[in-house]
Amino acid sequence: MTITALHSQVKADTDEALLDMLASFPDHAPQLKAAMQHALLAGGKRLRPLLVHVVGEVLALDKSDCMTIACAVECIHAYSLVHDDLPAMDDDDLRRGKPTCHVAFDEATAILAGDALQTLAFSIIADAPMADTGHARRAGLVSMLARASGYLGMCGGQAIDLAATGKEVSVEALTQLHSLKTGALLRVCVEMATHVADDLDAEHRSALIRFADAIGLAFQVQDDILDVEGSSDTTGKPAGSDVALGKSTYPALLGLQAAKSELDRLHQQALQALQGLPYNTHLLVAFSELLVKRDH
Amino acid sequence: MTITALHSQVKADTDEALLDMLASFPDHAPQLKAAMQHALLAGGKRLRPLLVHVVGEVLALDKSDCMTIACAVECIHAYSLVHDDLPAMDDDDLRRGKPTCHVAFDEATAILAGDALQTLAFSIIADAPMADTGHARRAGLVSMLARASGYLGMCGGQAIDLAATGKEVSVEALTQLHSLKTGALLRVCVEMATHVADDLDAEHRSALIRFADAIGLAFQVQDDILDVEGSSDTTGKPAGSDVALGKSTYPALLGLQAAKSELDRLHQQALQALQGLPYNTHLLVAFSELLVKRDH
Repeated sequence: MTITALHSQVKADTDEALLDMLASFPDHAPQLKAAMQHALLAGGKRLRPLLVHVVGEVLALDKSDCMTIACAVECIHAYSLVHDDLPAMDDDDLRRGKPTCHVAFDEATAILAGDALQTLAFSIIADAPMADTGHARRAGLVSMLARASGYLGMCGGQAIDLAATGKEVSVEALTQLHSLKTGALLRVCVEMATHVADDLDAEHRSALIRFADAIGLAFQVQDDILDVEGSSDTTGKPAGSDVALGKSTYPALLGLQAAKSELDRLHQQALQALQGLPYNTHLLVAFSELLVKRDH
Repeated sequence: MTITALHSQVKADTDEALLDMLASFPDHAPQLKAAMQHALLAGGKRLRPLLVHVVGEVLALDKSDCMTIACAVECIHAYSLVHDDLPAMDDDDLRRGKPTCHVAFDEATAILAGDALQTLAFSIIADAPMADTGHARRAGLVSMLARASGYLGMCGGQAIDLAATGKEVSVEALTQLHSLKTGALLRVCVEMATHVADDLDAEHRSALIRFADAIGLAFQVQDDILDVEGSSDTTGKPAGSDVALGKSTYPALLGLQAAKSELDRLHQQALQALQGLPYNTHLLVAFSELLVKRDH
Protein backbone atom coordinates (compact mmCIF):
# COMPACT_ATOMS: atom_id res chain seq x y z
CA MET A 1 0.00 0.00 0.00
CA THR A 2 1.20 3.53 -0.73
CA ILE A 3 1.32 6.18 1.99
CA THR A 4 -1.20 8.25 0.00
CA ALA A 5 -3.72 5.42 -0.12
CA LEU A 6 -3.18 4.62 3.55
CA HIS A 7 -3.53 8.29 4.49
CA SER A 8 -6.87 8.62 2.67
CA GLN A 9 -8.16 5.48 4.33
CA VAL A 10 -6.96 6.57 7.79
CA LYS A 11 -8.61 9.97 7.39
CA ALA A 12 -11.94 8.44 6.41
CA ASP A 13 -11.82 5.70 9.06
CA THR A 14 -10.79 8.10 11.85
CA ASP A 15 -13.52 10.59 10.97
CA GLU A 16 -16.09 7.82 10.90
CA ALA A 17 -14.98 6.27 14.19
CA LEU A 18 -14.94 9.62 15.99
CA LEU A 19 -18.34 10.61 14.57
CA ASP A 20 -19.84 7.25 15.60
CA MET A 21 -18.49 7.72 19.10
CA LEU A 22 -20.06 11.18 19.47
CA ALA A 23 -23.30 9.96 17.90
CA SER A 24 -23.54 7.29 20.59
CA PHE A 25 -23.70 9.98 23.31
CA PRO A 26 -27.10 11.08 24.60
CA ASP A 27 -28.21 14.62 23.78
CA HIS A 28 -28.32 16.12 27.25
CA ALA A 29 -25.76 18.83 26.38
CA PRO A 30 -26.27 19.46 22.63
CA GLN A 31 -24.07 22.57 22.47
CA LEU A 32 -21.14 20.78 24.13
CA LYS A 33 -21.58 17.80 21.82
CA ALA A 34 -21.61 20.06 18.76
CA ALA A 35 -18.47 21.85 19.98
CA MET A 36 -16.67 18.52 20.50
CA GLN A 37 -17.64 17.47 16.99
CA HIS A 38 -16.49 20.81 15.57
CA ALA A 39 -13.12 20.34 17.24
CA LEU A 40 -12.72 16.71 16.21
CA LEU A 41 -13.83 17.02 12.61
CA ALA A 42 -12.47 20.39 11.54
CA GLY A 43 -10.50 18.84 8.70
CA GLY A 44 -7.31 17.89 10.51
CA LYS A 45 -4.52 16.19 8.58
CA ARG A 46 -4.71 13.13 10.89
CA LEU A 47 -0.93 12.79 10.86
CA ARG A 48 -0.88 11.15 14.30
CA PRO A 49 -3.48 8.52 13.37
CA LEU A 50 -1.50 7.96 10.16
CA LEU A 51 1.70 7.37 12.15
CA VAL A 52 -0.10 4.84 14.36
CA HIS A 53 -1.43 2.98 11.32
CA VAL A 54 1.94 3.13 9.53
CA VAL A 55 3.52 1.37 12.51
CA GLY A 56 0.52 -0.97 12.48
CA GLU A 57 1.16 -1.86 8.82
CA VAL A 58 4.90 -2.33 9.38
CA LEU A 59 4.41 -4.61 12.39
CA ALA A 60 1.17 -6.23 11.14
CA LEU A 61 -0.79 -5.09 14.19
CA ASP A 62 -4.47 -5.60 14.82
CA LYS A 63 -6.33 -2.85 12.94
CA SER A 64 -8.90 -2.24 15.64
CA ASP A 65 -6.15 -1.78 18.25
CA CYS A 66 -4.56 0.81 15.94
CA MET A 67 -7.92 2.57 15.53
CA THR A 68 -8.36 2.73 19.32
CA ILE A 69 -4.92 4.27 19.77
CA ALA A 70 -5.33 6.64 16.82
CA CYS A 71 -8.71 7.94 18.02
CA ALA A 72 -7.46 8.46 21.58
CA VAL A 73 -4.39 10.41 20.40
CA GLU A 74 -6.52 12.49 18.05
CA CYS A 75 -8.87 13.43 20.92
CA ILE A 76 -5.85 14.67 22.91
CA HIS A 77 -4.56 16.57 19.88
CA ALA A 78 -7.99 18.14 19.20
CA TYR A 79 -8.45 19.20 22.84
CA SER A 80 -5.00 20.80 22.89
CA LEU A 81 -5.80 22.87 19.78
CA VAL A 82 -9.12 24.07 21.24
CA HIS A 83 -7.42 25.24 24.44
CA ASP A 84 -4.35 26.66 22.63
CA ASP A 85 -6.63 28.80 20.44
CA LEU A 86 -8.43 30.39 23.43
CA PRO A 87 -8.11 34.18 23.90
CA ALA A 88 -6.02 33.67 27.05
CA MET A 89 -3.58 31.47 25.10
CA ASP A 90 -2.77 32.11 21.40
CA ASP A 91 -6.08 33.92 20.71
CA ASP A 92 -6.63 32.44 17.25
CA ASP A 93 -9.90 33.02 15.43
CA LEU A 94 -9.20 30.71 12.53
CA ARG A 95 -7.78 27.21 12.23
CA ARG A 96 -7.52 25.48 8.87
CA GLY A 97 -9.60 28.32 7.47
CA LYS A 98 -12.55 27.68 9.81
CA PRO A 99 -13.63 29.54 12.95
CA THR A 100 -11.94 28.14 16.06
CA CYS A 101 -14.12 26.48 18.68
CA HIS A 102 -14.52 29.50 20.97
CA VAL A 103 -15.46 31.65 17.95
CA ALA A 104 -17.95 29.14 16.54
CA PHE A 105 -19.45 28.58 20.02
CA ASP A 106 -18.25 30.57 23.05
CA GLU A 107 -15.28 30.50 25.40
CA ALA A 108 -16.97 28.54 28.19
CA THR A 109 -18.16 25.89 25.74
CA ALA A 110 -14.69 25.67 24.17
CA ILE A 111 -13.05 25.16 27.56
CA LEU A 112 -15.54 22.40 28.39
CA ALA A 113 -15.25 20.81 24.93
CA GLY A 114 -11.47 20.58 25.38
CA ASP A 115 -11.94 19.13 28.85
CA ALA A 116 -14.44 16.54 27.65
CA LEU A 117 -12.26 15.59 24.66
CA GLN A 118 -9.34 14.90 26.97
CA THR A 119 -11.58 12.66 29.09
CA LEU A 120 -12.86 10.94 25.95
CA ALA A 121 -9.31 9.96 24.99
CA PHE A 122 -8.94 7.95 28.18
CA SER A 123 -12.44 6.48 27.84
CA ILE A 124 -11.62 5.25 24.37
CA ILE A 125 -8.63 3.28 25.61
CA ALA A 126 -10.22 2.03 28.82
CA ASP A 127 -13.37 0.84 27.07
CA ALA A 128 -11.79 -0.63 23.93
CA PRO A 129 -12.35 -4.32 23.41
CA MET A 130 -8.92 -5.99 23.58
CA ALA A 131 -8.49 -9.71 23.67
CA ASP A 132 -6.32 -11.85 25.96
CA THR A 133 -3.81 -9.59 27.64
CA GLY A 134 -6.05 -6.60 26.92
CA HIS A 135 -6.32 -5.38 30.49
CA ALA A 136 -2.58 -5.10 30.98
CA ARG A 137 -2.26 -3.40 27.64
CA ARG A 138 -5.01 -0.91 28.36
CA ALA A 139 -3.46 0.18 31.66
CA GLY A 140 -0.09 0.58 29.92
CA LEU A 141 -1.66 2.62 27.12
CA VAL A 142 -3.41 4.93 29.59
CA SER A 143 -0.14 5.42 31.45
CA MET A 144 1.77 6.28 28.25
CA LEU A 145 -0.90 8.62 26.91
CA ALA A 146 -1.20 10.44 30.25
CA ARG A 147 2.56 10.85 30.49
CA ALA A 148 2.73 12.27 26.96
CA SER A 149 -0.20 14.65 27.51
CA GLY A 150 0.25 16.10 30.99
CA TYR A 151 2.88 18.01 32.93
CA LEU A 152 5.61 15.60 31.77
CA GLY A 153 4.65 16.11 28.12
CA MET A 154 2.36 18.35 26.12
CA CYS A 155 0.95 20.57 28.91
CA GLY A 156 4.43 21.08 30.30
CA GLY A 157 5.70 22.04 26.84
CA GLN A 158 2.85 24.47 26.36
CA ALA A 159 3.68 26.09 29.72
CA ILE A 160 7.34 26.42 28.72
CA ASP A 161 6.18 27.94 25.44
CA LEU A 162 4.05 30.53 27.28
CA ALA A 163 6.94 31.40 29.57
CA ALA A 164 9.33 31.71 26.60
CA THR A 165 7.05 33.93 24.50
CA GLY A 166 8.63 37.32 23.92
CA LYS A 167 12.04 36.08 25.06
CA GLU A 168 14.93 34.80 22.98
CA VAL A 169 15.72 31.27 24.11
CA SER A 170 18.63 28.96 23.27
CA VAL A 171 18.35 26.27 20.59
CA GLU A 172 18.57 23.69 23.40
CA ALA A 173 15.64 25.28 25.25
CA LEU A 174 13.62 25.50 22.01
CA THR A 175 14.31 21.84 21.35
CA GLN A 176 13.18 20.83 24.86
CA LEU A 177 10.04 22.94 24.44
CA HIS A 178 9.11 21.23 21.17
CA SER A 179 10.06 17.74 22.38
CA LEU A 180 7.42 18.18 25.06
CA LYS A 181 4.84 20.33 23.29
CA THR A 182 4.55 18.44 20.00
CA GLY A 183 7.18 15.68 20.13
CA ALA A 184 5.69 13.78 23.07
CA LEU A 185 2.38 13.16 21.30
CA LEU A 186 4.06 11.94 18.08
CA ARG A 187 6.38 9.73 20.11
CA VAL A 188 3.49 8.21 22.06
CA CYS A 189 1.83 7.17 18.78
CA VAL A 190 4.79 4.84 18.26
CA GLU A 191 5.10 3.89 21.94
CA MET A 192 1.44 2.87 22.09
CA ALA A 193 1.39 1.08 18.75
CA THR A 194 4.50 -0.93 19.65
CA HIS A 195 2.99 -1.65 23.08
CA VAL A 196 0.20 -3.70 21.48
CA ALA A 197 2.67 -5.63 19.28
CA ASP A 198 3.28 -9.25 20.22
CA ASP A 199 6.90 -10.26 20.80
CA LEU A 200 8.50 -7.10 19.50
CA ASP A 201 12.23 -7.03 20.16
CA ALA A 202 13.07 -4.29 22.71
CA GLU A 203 15.85 -2.92 20.49
CA HIS A 204 13.54 -2.72 17.52
CA ARG A 205 11.01 -0.87 19.66
CA SER A 206 13.69 1.62 20.74
CA ALA A 207 14.67 2.17 17.12
CA LEU A 208 11.08 2.97 16.17
CA ILE A 209 10.81 5.42 19.09
CA ARG A 210 14.09 7.08 18.03
CA PHE A 211 12.55 7.45 14.57
CA ALA A 212 9.50 9.14 16.14
CA ASP A 213 11.65 11.51 18.19
CA ALA A 214 13.71 12.63 15.19
CA ILE A 215 10.69 13.00 12.95
CA GLY A 216 8.80 14.88 15.66
CA LEU A 217 11.51 17.48 15.91
CA ALA A 218 11.88 17.65 12.12
CA PHE A 219 8.13 18.29 11.95
CA GLN A 220 8.56 21.35 14.16
CA VAL A 221 11.60 22.70 12.30
CA GLN A 222 9.60 22.40 9.06
CA ASP A 223 6.69 24.19 10.77
CA ASP A 224 8.99 27.09 11.61
CA ILE A 225 10.40 27.17 8.07
CA LEU A 226 6.86 27.21 6.63
CA ASP A 227 6.06 30.14 8.89
CA VAL A 228 8.81 32.08 7.09
CA GLU A 229 8.48 30.70 3.57
CA GLY A 230 5.00 29.26 3.31
CA SER A 231 2.07 30.90 1.62
CA SER A 232 -0.87 31.64 3.90
CA ASP A 233 -3.03 30.04 1.20
CA THR A 234 -1.49 26.66 1.89
CA THR A 235 -0.57 26.94 5.60
CA GLY A 236 -3.91 28.56 6.53
CA LYS A 237 -2.25 31.12 8.77
CA PRO A 238 -0.53 34.43 8.03
CA ALA A 239 3.18 34.12 7.14
CA GLY A 240 5.42 35.30 9.97
CA SER A 241 2.73 34.76 12.62
CA ASP A 242 5.14 32.96 15.00
CA VAL A 243 7.51 35.92 14.93
CA ALA A 244 4.57 38.33 15.34
CA LEU A 245 3.52 36.39 18.48
CA GLY A 246 7.03 36.72 19.92
CA LYS A 247 7.77 32.98 19.58
CA SER A 248 11.32 31.77 19.11
CA THR A 249 11.80 29.73 15.93
CA TYR A 250 14.63 27.71 14.42
CA PRO A 251 15.07 30.08 11.44
CA ALA A 252 15.20 33.07 13.83
CA LEU A 253 17.82 31.40 16.06
CA LEU A 254 19.87 29.60 13.41
CA GLY A 255 19.14 31.48 10.17
CA LEU A 256 16.95 30.03 7.42
CA GLN A 257 19.69 28.02 5.66
CA ALA A 258 20.96 26.46 8.88
CA ALA A 259 17.37 25.62 9.86
CA LYS A 260 17.00 23.80 6.53
CA SER A 261 20.22 21.90 7.19
CA GLU A 262 18.93 20.97 10.64
CA LEU A 263 15.71 19.69 9.05
CA ASP A 264 17.76 17.55 6.69
CA ARG A 265 19.98 16.27 9.53
CA LEU A 266 16.92 15.26 11.60
CA HIS A 267 15.36 13.59 8.59
CA GLN A 268 18.54 11.55 8.01
CA GLN A 269 18.64 10.68 11.71
CA ALA A 270 15.07 9.37 11.48
CA LEU A 271 15.93 7.24 8.43
CA GLN A 272 19.06 5.97 10.14
CA ALA A 273 17.00 4.73 13.09
CA LEU A 274 15.19 2.43 10.65
CA GLN A 275 18.42 0.73 9.49
CA GLY A 276 18.66 -2.80 10.72
CA LEU A 277 14.95 -3.25 11.40
CA PRO A 278 13.84 -6.63 9.99
CA TYR A 279 10.66 -5.14 8.56
CA ASN A 280 9.56 -3.54 5.34
CA THR A 281 9.89 0.08 6.45
CA HIS A 282 8.91 1.81 3.21
CA LEU A 283 5.78 3.31 4.79
CA LEU A 284 7.86 4.82 7.61
CA VAL A 285 10.25 6.30 5.07
CA ALA A 286 7.30 7.68 3.10
CA PHE A 287 5.76 9.08 6.30
CA SER A 288 8.98 10.92 7.12
CA GLU A 289 9.04 12.42 3.62
CA LEU A 290 5.41 13.47 3.91
CA LEU A 291 6.29 15.37 7.09
CA VAL A 292 9.47 17.15 6.01
CA LYS A 293 8.30 17.96 2.48
CA ARG A 294 4.79 19.17 3.34
CA ASP A 295 3.85 22.72 2.35
CA HIS A 296 1.16 23.17 5.04
CA MET B 1 -12.81 5.00 64.39
CA THR B 2 -14.95 8.14 64.42
CA ILE B 3 -15.72 10.04 61.22
CA THR B 4 -13.93 13.08 62.67
CA ALA B 5 -10.73 11.15 63.28
CA LEU B 6 -10.93 9.50 59.87
CA HIS B 7 -11.57 12.84 58.19
CA SER B 8 -8.50 14.44 59.82
CA GLN B 9 -6.36 11.51 58.79
CA VAL B 10 -7.70 11.48 55.23
CA LYS B 11 -7.06 15.22 54.87
CA ALA B 12 -3.48 14.90 56.06
CA ASP B 13 -2.77 11.74 54.02
CA THR B 14 -4.32 13.14 50.83
CA ASP B 15 -2.41 16.42 51.11
CA GLU B 16 0.83 14.53 51.67
CA ALA B 17 0.28 12.09 48.79
CA LEU B 18 -0.62 14.86 46.35
CA LEU B 19 2.34 17.01 47.44
CA ASP B 20 4.71 14.05 47.07
CA MET B 21 3.41 13.40 43.59
CA LEU B 22 3.98 16.99 42.46
CA ALA B 23 7.38 17.08 44.16
CA SER B 24 8.43 14.08 42.06
CA PHE B 25 7.92 16.09 38.85
CA PRO B 26 10.94 17.79 37.27
CA ASP B 27 10.99 21.59 37.32
CA HIS B 28 10.79 22.30 33.59
CA ALA B 29 7.57 24.32 33.97
CA PRO B 30 7.76 25.82 37.49
CA GLN B 31 4.80 28.18 37.07
CA LEU B 32 2.53 25.36 35.91
CA LYS B 33 3.68 23.14 38.76
CA ALA B 34 3.01 25.92 41.29
CA ALA B 35 -0.46 26.49 39.82
CA MET B 36 -1.25 22.77 40.04
CA GLN B 37 -0.13 22.77 43.67
CA HIS B 38 -2.18 25.89 44.40
CA ALA B 39 -5.26 24.18 42.95
CA LEU B 40 -4.68 20.87 44.72
CA LEU B 41 -3.81 22.19 48.15
CA ALA B 42 -6.08 25.21 48.54
CA GLY B 43 -7.63 23.80 51.70
CA GLY B 44 -10.41 21.67 50.22
CA LYS B 45 -12.66 19.69 52.54
CA ARG B 46 -11.57 16.40 50.92
CA LEU B 47 -15.12 15.05 51.11
CA ARG B 48 -14.61 12.82 48.08
CA PRO B 49 -11.43 11.22 49.46
CA LEU B 50 -13.27 10.81 52.78
CA LEU B 51 -16.12 8.98 51.05
CA VAL B 52 -13.63 6.64 49.35
CA HIS B 53 -11.93 5.87 52.67
CA VAL B 54 -15.26 5.47 54.50
CA VAL B 55 -16.21 2.77 51.98
CA GLY B 56 -12.69 1.40 52.42
CA GLU B 57 -13.17 1.12 56.19
CA VAL B 58 -16.62 -0.44 55.86
CA LEU B 59 -15.44 -3.08 53.35
CA ALA B 60 -11.92 -3.45 54.82
CA LEU B 61 -10.27 -2.47 51.53
CA ASP B 62 -6.57 -2.07 50.92
CA LYS B 63 -5.59 1.40 52.17
CA SER B 64 -3.22 2.14 49.31
CA ASP B 65 -5.91 1.29 46.72
CA CYS B 66 -8.20 3.75 48.50
CA MET B 67 -5.45 6.39 48.46
CA THR B 68 -4.97 5.90 44.70
CA ILE B 69 -8.68 6.31 44.04
CA ALA B 70 -9.02 9.26 46.42
CA CYS B 71 -6.09 11.16 44.88
CA ALA B 72 -7.34 10.58 41.34
CA VAL B 73 -10.85 11.81 42.17
CA GLU B 74 -9.43 14.83 43.98
CA CYS B 75 -7.36 15.77 40.90
CA ILE B 76 -10.53 15.71 38.79
CA HIS B 77 -12.38 17.75 41.41
CA ALA B 78 -9.54 20.30 41.64
CA TYR B 79 -9.28 20.66 37.86
CA SER B 80 -13.03 21.22 37.58
CA LEU B 81 -12.91 24.01 40.17
CA VAL B 82 -10.01 25.76 38.40
CA HIS B 83 -11.86 25.73 35.08
CA ASP B 84 -15.26 26.61 36.64
CA ASP B 85 -13.73 29.68 38.28
CA LEU B 86 -12.34 31.07 34.98
CA PRO B 87 -13.66 34.44 33.74
CA ALA B 88 -15.45 32.74 30.83
CA MET B 89 -17.24 30.40 33.26
CA ASP B 90 -18.32 31.54 36.78
CA ASP B 91 -15.67 34.29 36.98
CA ASP B 92 -14.84 33.76 40.66
CA ASP B 93 -11.88 35.58 42.23
CA LEU B 94 -12.01 33.80 45.56
CA ARG B 95 -12.42 30.19 46.59
CA ARG B 96 -12.32 29.18 50.25
CA GLY B 97 -11.13 32.71 50.99
CA LYS B 98 -8.05 32.42 48.74
CA PRO B 99 -7.42 33.82 45.25
CA THR B 100 -8.58 31.43 42.55
CA CYS B 101 -5.93 29.91 40.26
CA HIS B 102 -6.30 32.40 37.39
CA VAL B 103 -6.08 35.29 39.88
CA ALA B 104 -3.05 33.91 41.71
CA PHE B 105 -1.35 33.08 38.37
CA ASP B 106 -2.97 33.99 35.04
CA GLU B 107 -5.72 32.64 32.84
CA ALA B 108 -3.49 30.68 30.46
CA THR B 109 -1.70 29.01 33.37
CA ALA B 110 -5.01 28.19 35.05
CA ILE B 111 -6.35 26.56 31.88
CA LEU B 112 -3.17 24.48 31.57
CA ALA B 113 -3.12 23.62 35.28
CA GLY B 114 -6.67 22.29 35.01
CA ASP B 115 -5.72 20.33 31.90
CA ALA B 116 -2.65 18.81 33.53
CA LEU B 117 -4.57 17.95 36.71
CA GLN B 118 -7.12 16.04 34.67
CA THR B 119 -4.30 14.09 33.00
CA LEU B 120 -2.68 13.48 36.39
CA ALA B 121 -5.86 11.80 37.64
CA PHE B 122 -5.57 9.14 34.94
CA SER B 123 -1.82 8.78 35.47
CA ILE B 124 -2.37 8.11 39.15
CA ILE B 125 -4.68 5.20 38.43
CA ALA B 126 -2.71 3.80 35.50
CA ASP B 127 0.59 3.89 37.37
CA ALA B 128 -0.63 2.74 40.78
CA PRO B 129 0.88 -0.49 42.04
CA MET B 130 -1.94 -3.01 42.31
CA ALA B 131 -1.36 -6.65 43.03
CA ASP B 132 -2.77 -9.72 41.28
CA THR B 133 -5.74 -8.65 39.22
CA GLY B 134 -4.46 -5.08 39.25
CA HIS B 135 -4.43 -4.59 35.50
CA ALA B 136 -8.07 -5.44 35.05
CA ARG B 137 -8.94 -3.23 37.99
CA ARG B 138 -6.96 -0.31 36.68
CA ALA B 139 -8.64 -0.38 33.28
CA GLY B 140 -12.04 -0.56 35.02
CA LEU B 141 -11.17 2.35 37.28
CA VAL B 142 -10.04 4.50 34.34
CA SER B 143 -13.26 3.68 32.52
CA MET B 144 -15.41 4.63 35.53
CA LEU B 145 -13.53 7.83 36.27
CA ALA B 146 -13.65 8.94 32.63
CA ARG B 147 -17.37 8.25 32.41
CA ALA B 148 -18.03 10.26 35.58
CA SER B 149 -15.84 13.18 34.47
CA GLY B 150 -16.56 13.71 30.79
CA TYR B 151 -19.55 14.39 28.56
CA LEU B 152 -21.55 11.62 30.26
CA GLY B 153 -20.87 13.10 33.71
CA MET B 154 -19.35 16.25 35.14
CA CYS B 155 -18.51 18.14 31.91
CA GLY B 156 -21.97 17.37 30.54
CA GLY B 157 -23.54 18.64 33.77
CA GLN B 158 -21.48 21.81 33.66
CA ALA B 159 -22.61 22.42 30.06
CA ILE B 160 -26.26 21.92 31.08
CA ASP B 161 -25.66 24.36 33.95
CA LEU B 162 -24.27 26.98 31.54
CA ALA B 163 -27.24 26.54 29.22
CA ALA B 164 -29.70 26.79 32.13
CA THR B 165 -28.18 29.94 33.66
CA GLY B 166 -30.65 32.82 33.56
CA LYS B 167 -33.56 30.46 32.82
CA GLU B 168 -36.05 28.89 35.19
CA VAL B 169 -35.81 25.13 34.83
CA SER B 170 -37.99 22.35 36.21
CA VAL B 171 -37.07 20.44 39.38
CA GLU B 172 -36.48 17.37 37.18
CA ALA B 173 -34.04 19.29 34.95
CA LEU B 174 -32.26 20.72 38.00
CA THR B 175 -31.94 17.22 39.43
CA GLN B 176 -30.48 15.87 36.18
CA LEU B 177 -28.04 18.80 36.05
CA HIS B 178 -26.78 18.12 39.58
CA SER B 179 -26.71 14.33 39.14
CA LEU B 180 -24.20 14.92 36.35
CA LYS B 181 -22.35 18.01 37.57
CA THR B 182 -21.66 16.98 41.18
CA GLY B 183 -23.43 13.65 41.67
CA ALA B 184 -21.39 11.66 39.16
CA LEU B 185 -18.09 12.35 40.92
CA LEU B 186 -19.47 11.41 44.37
CA ARG B 187 -21.03 8.29 42.89
CA VAL B 188 -17.79 7.25 41.23
CA CYS B 189 -16.00 7.39 44.60
CA VAL B 190 -18.22 4.50 45.67
CA GLU B 191 -18.15 2.76 42.29
CA MET B 192 -14.35 2.78 42.24
CA ALA B 193 -13.91 1.79 45.88
CA THR B 194 -16.33 -1.12 45.50
CA HIS B 195 -14.57 -2.10 42.24
CA VAL B 196 -11.38 -2.94 44.15
CA ALA B 197 -13.30 -4.96 46.76
CA ASP B 198 -12.87 -8.73 46.61
CA ASP B 199 -16.04 -10.79 46.37
CA LEU B 200 -18.49 -7.99 47.02
CA ASP B 201 -22.07 -9.10 46.47
CA ALA B 202 -23.57 -7.27 43.44
CA GLU B 203 -26.67 -6.29 45.42
CA HIS B 204 -24.58 -4.85 48.20
CA ARG B 205 -22.60 -2.86 45.66
CA SER B 206 -25.83 -1.47 44.17
CA ALA B 207 -27.04 -0.49 47.64
CA LEU B 208 -23.82 1.44 48.29
CA ILE B 209 -24.16 3.22 44.93
CA ARG B 210 -27.79 4.10 45.72
CA PHE B 211 -26.50 5.58 48.98
CA ALA B 212 -24.00 7.69 47.01
CA ASP B 213 -26.66 8.90 44.57
CA ALA B 214 -29.03 10.00 47.33
CA ILE B 215 -26.29 11.64 49.37
CA GLY B 216 -24.89 13.36 46.27
CA LEU B 217 -28.22 15.01 45.58
CA ALA B 218 -28.73 15.85 49.25
CA PHE B 219 -25.30 17.53 49.17
CA GLN B 220 -26.49 19.83 46.39
CA VAL B 221 -29.84 20.64 48.03
CA GLN B 222 -27.93 21.56 51.21
CA ASP B 223 -25.58 23.70 49.10
CA ASP B 224 -28.56 25.62 47.74
CA ILE B 225 -30.05 26.03 51.23
CA LEU B 226 -26.71 27.33 52.53
CA ASP B 227 -26.67 29.85 49.69
CA VAL B 228 -29.89 31.29 51.13
CA GLU B 229 -29.32 30.81 54.86
CA GLY B 230 -25.59 30.44 55.30
CA SER B 231 -23.25 33.12 56.55
CA SER B 232 -20.57 34.16 54.08
CA ASP B 233 -18.13 33.80 57.03
CA THR B 234 -18.66 30.04 57.05
CA THR B 235 -19.51 29.32 53.40
CA GLY B 236 -16.72 31.55 52.07
CA LYS B 237 -18.97 33.06 49.39
CA PRO B 238 -21.53 35.85 49.49
CA ALA B 239 -25.05 34.74 50.50
CA GLY B 240 -27.44 34.65 47.55
CA SER B 241 -24.62 34.32 45.01
CA ASP B 242 -26.37 31.50 43.11
CA VAL B 243 -29.47 33.64 42.64
CA ALA B 244 -27.31 36.63 41.66
CA LEU B 245 -25.66 34.46 38.96
CA GLY B 246 -29.06 33.49 37.57
CA LYS B 247 -28.76 29.86 38.69
CA SER B 248 -31.85 27.85 39.50
CA THR B 249 -31.85 26.45 43.04
CA TYR B 250 -34.05 24.06 45.02
CA PRO B 251 -35.23 26.78 47.46
CA ALA B 252 -36.09 29.05 44.52
CA LEU B 253 -38.07 26.33 42.73
CA LEU B 254 -39.65 24.61 45.75
CA GLY B 255 -39.57 27.23 48.51
CA LEU B 256 -37.17 27.04 51.46
CA GLN B 257 -39.31 24.76 53.66
CA ALA B 258 -39.98 22.29 50.85
CA ALA B 259 -36.27 22.29 49.99
CA LYS B 260 -35.51 21.36 53.60
CA SER B 261 -38.08 18.55 53.43
CA GLU B 262 -36.47 17.32 50.22
CA LEU B 263 -33.08 17.33 51.93
CA ASP B 264 -34.52 15.24 54.75
CA ARG B 265 -36.21 12.86 52.29
CA LEU B 266 -32.95 12.32 50.40
CA HIS B 267 -31.07 11.79 53.66
CA GLN B 268 -33.60 9.13 54.72
CA GLN B 269 -33.33 7.53 51.28
CA ALA B 270 -29.56 7.31 51.69
CA LEU B 271 -29.90 5.71 55.13
CA GLN B 272 -32.50 3.29 53.81
CA ALA B 273 -30.10 2.11 51.12
CA LEU B 274 -27.79 0.93 53.92
CA GLN B 275 -30.46 -1.32 55.48
CA GLY B 276 -29.70 -4.97 55.00
CA LEU B 277 -25.98 -4.49 54.36
CA PRO B 278 -24.04 -7.08 56.39
CA TYR B 279 -21.41 -4.50 57.39
CA ASN B 280 -20.91 -2.04 60.17
CA THR B 281 -22.17 1.03 58.35
CA HIS B 282 -21.81 3.61 61.14
CA LEU B 283 -19.16 5.55 59.20
CA LEU B 284 -21.48 5.82 56.19
CA VAL B 285 -24.27 7.08 58.44
CA ALA B 286 -21.87 9.59 60.00
CA PHE B 287 -20.67 10.67 56.53
CA SER B 288 -24.25 11.35 55.43
CA GLU B 289 -24.82 13.46 58.56
CA LEU B 290 -21.62 15.38 57.95
CA LEU B 291 -22.88 16.28 54.49
CA VAL B 292 -26.46 17.28 55.25
CA LYS B 293 -25.66 19.10 58.51
CA ARG B 294 -22.61 21.02 57.31
CA ASP B 295 -22.71 24.81 57.55
CA HIS B 296 -20.16 25.44 54.77
